[in-house]
Amino acid sequence: MKKVINNVSDIEKELLEGLATACPKIVRKLRDQNIIVRAILNPNKVAIVSGGGSGHEPAHAGYVGYGMLDCAVSGSIFTSPPVSLVFKAICEVANEKGVLCIVKNYTGDIMSFDLAIDMARSKGIKVDRVIVDDDIAVTDNLVGRRGVAGTILVHKIAGAAAEAGLDLETIKEIAQRTINNVRTIGVALKLCTVPAVGKPGFDVPDTEMEFGIGIHGEPGIRQEQITSADGIARKMLDKLLSHIYFAGNEVVVLINGMGATPMMELLIVSRFVNAYLYRNAVKIHDTLVGNYMTSIDMAGFSISLLKLDDNLRAFYDASAITFALKK
Amino acid sequence: MKKVINNVSDIEKELLEGLATACPKIVRKLRDQNIIVRAILNPNKVAIVSGGGSGHEPAHAGYVGYGMLDCAVSGSIFTSPPVSLVFKAICEVANEKGVLCIVKNYTGDIMSFDLAIDMARSKGIKVDRVIVDDDIAVTDNLVGRRGVAGTILVHKIAGAAAEAGLDLETIKEIAQRTINNVRTIGVALKLCTVPAVGKPGFDVPDTEMEFGIGIHGEPGIRQEQITSADGIARKMLDKLLSHIYFAGNEVVVLINGMGATPMMELLIVSRFVNAYLYRNAVKIHDTLVGNYMTSIDMAGFSISLLKLDDNLRAFYDASAITFALKK
Repeated sequence: MKKVINNVSDIEKELLEGLATACPKIVRKLRDQNIIVRAILNPNKVAIVSGGGSGHEPAHAGYVGYGMLDCAVSGSIFTSPPVSLVFKAICEVANEKGVLCIVKNYTGDIMSFDLAIDMARSKGIKVDRVIVDDDIAVTDNLVGRRGVAGTILVHKIAGAAAEAGLDLETIKEIAQRTINNVRTIGVALKLCTVPAVGKPGFDVPDTEMEFGIGIHGEPGIRQEQITSADGIARKMLDKLLSHIYFAGNEVVVLINGMGATPMMELLIVSRFVNAYLYRNAVKIHDTLVGNYMTSIDMAGFSISLLKLDDNLRAFYDASAITFALKK
Repeated sequence: MKKVINNVSDIEKELLEGLATACPKIVRKLRDQNIIVRAILNPNKVAIVSGGGSGHEPAHAGYVGYGMLDCAVSGSIFTSPPVSLVFKAICEVANEKGVLCIVKNYTGDIMSFDLAIDMARSKGIKVDRVIVDDDIAVTDNLVGRRGVAGTILVHKIAGAAAEAGLDLETIKEIAQRTINNVRTIGVALKLCTVPAVGKPGFDVPDTEMEFGIGIHGEPGIRQEQITSADGIARKMLDKLLSHIYFAGNEVVVLINGMGATPMMELLIVSRFVNAYLYRNAVKIHDTLVGNYMTSIDMAGFSISLLKLDDNLRAFYDASAITFALKK
């Protein structure tokens, strides 16, 4: 395992300190807590909170700032943040307008957020949550679809709706509509190495890839031969297009690197995605290409499609000033 | 070699097409030429042109847009663009105000740009160039220091000066002052694989790193044991701080991933850099962290420091709207 780290047990804390020192005008880190908060909070808008395990940098702390999140709470690598930490995060940004939590669909994350929300409500805090479940790879389990890179688009739109001064109920409805309209599928050529483990969770043979990979290196649908970039992207798009009726609609495309994927490859994928969506009568409003929701050092990528309506488009287009996304 | 590509011979063209389709409001690609041009050119300002071999994505095409470059010209992977292509790029954006070319210090790049500049001048085009040589790793050769990630900061500042309407001579002087004030050093844990070759140029043993790596996988100063993130960053900073007198000055820090480096590691480095510069009385004006000038899929990073003065700070802070850098 070759990594640029210090003590394995300090990774989560140190990376958040690094993020906070890189953009002190945008965020600050709470002392002794793996919580990142906006440098200046606006008490006259609904606060947006997200979080989950570390290892997905720049998510979620990199999306704290104007027009997106007010607070991000980080657990250990690929581990849900504890209830007490989520509770602290909610309290830190709570105000009379209320708090909306954006949670990815994992049992541990939901449990931590739901218990913390109960605690916050018992203190008189107005707080609600939405669950993001955009990953179409695995659907035949009890938990349902996983929450992956599409979560960034939910941050963007819910954050803009909050910045516009809407009330908690309306923002929740807009966030839920975004969730209903976004789908993601991923592939991995090389799995990630969790520093405390020192080796990948399973092997992907030299000529194969994992189709439908999760963002923690969980297996997807199957291992299959690596074909061309266009062949891989086409298969992913066909699966996405069969899941929601995107034709005739306007979409945001997110081509997301998993951490060790060269920009060169993401751009080659972007080329095909653009051409193939055009051929399928899907209009692209905007395309994001880069490392938005990673899995440490996984080599691979995901494609997310978000179907817009006039309302979602306006919030997507609104300004954002964060470490990882500026608009 | 596991890569998400189509035909090896189409990589350069396809990645530029992917970039252009991802941000059609910002740039367009010339048909049948690996040249990216601003979607809307302003003929009333000096045009800024840069370029070099492919494989450094998002550089340089990702920096074409408002406040940075007007045009980027790409050769094959790690290969200088041919004279005819550089000439075409200069002609494409030339206007009465003139053209400034920003060239990285490699023999092939300089030869292509200088011959193209001669051709352009013979056509009556007003054009000049600066040479970026920020890499302090290798200095004892005939060519001098290599041009690496600091080039992005030269793009930023020269681009802003051009946008402000300054004349060619003044912009060249500002670009040269930026070059004089910027230094970079890099390390690699894992070398890059050029697709047409299929394997790295040399081996780095499992517990070692290449200190002073170039952006094409050229050897640096020596191979040495991988220590902690803080230990590696400290050694890099000591070398940078011994090269230019940064103490008491304000700097821009660029912590640049080489393509396959997880954001987690770059952020951990950012934390140390911030603390160590503070201890050495260097004031940080801004910190950039991400994949700005890559070497395909190399795992490693570089640190660049740019010493500011009031003039450079103002141009650094000015707006930029490009694929890879927004301010």
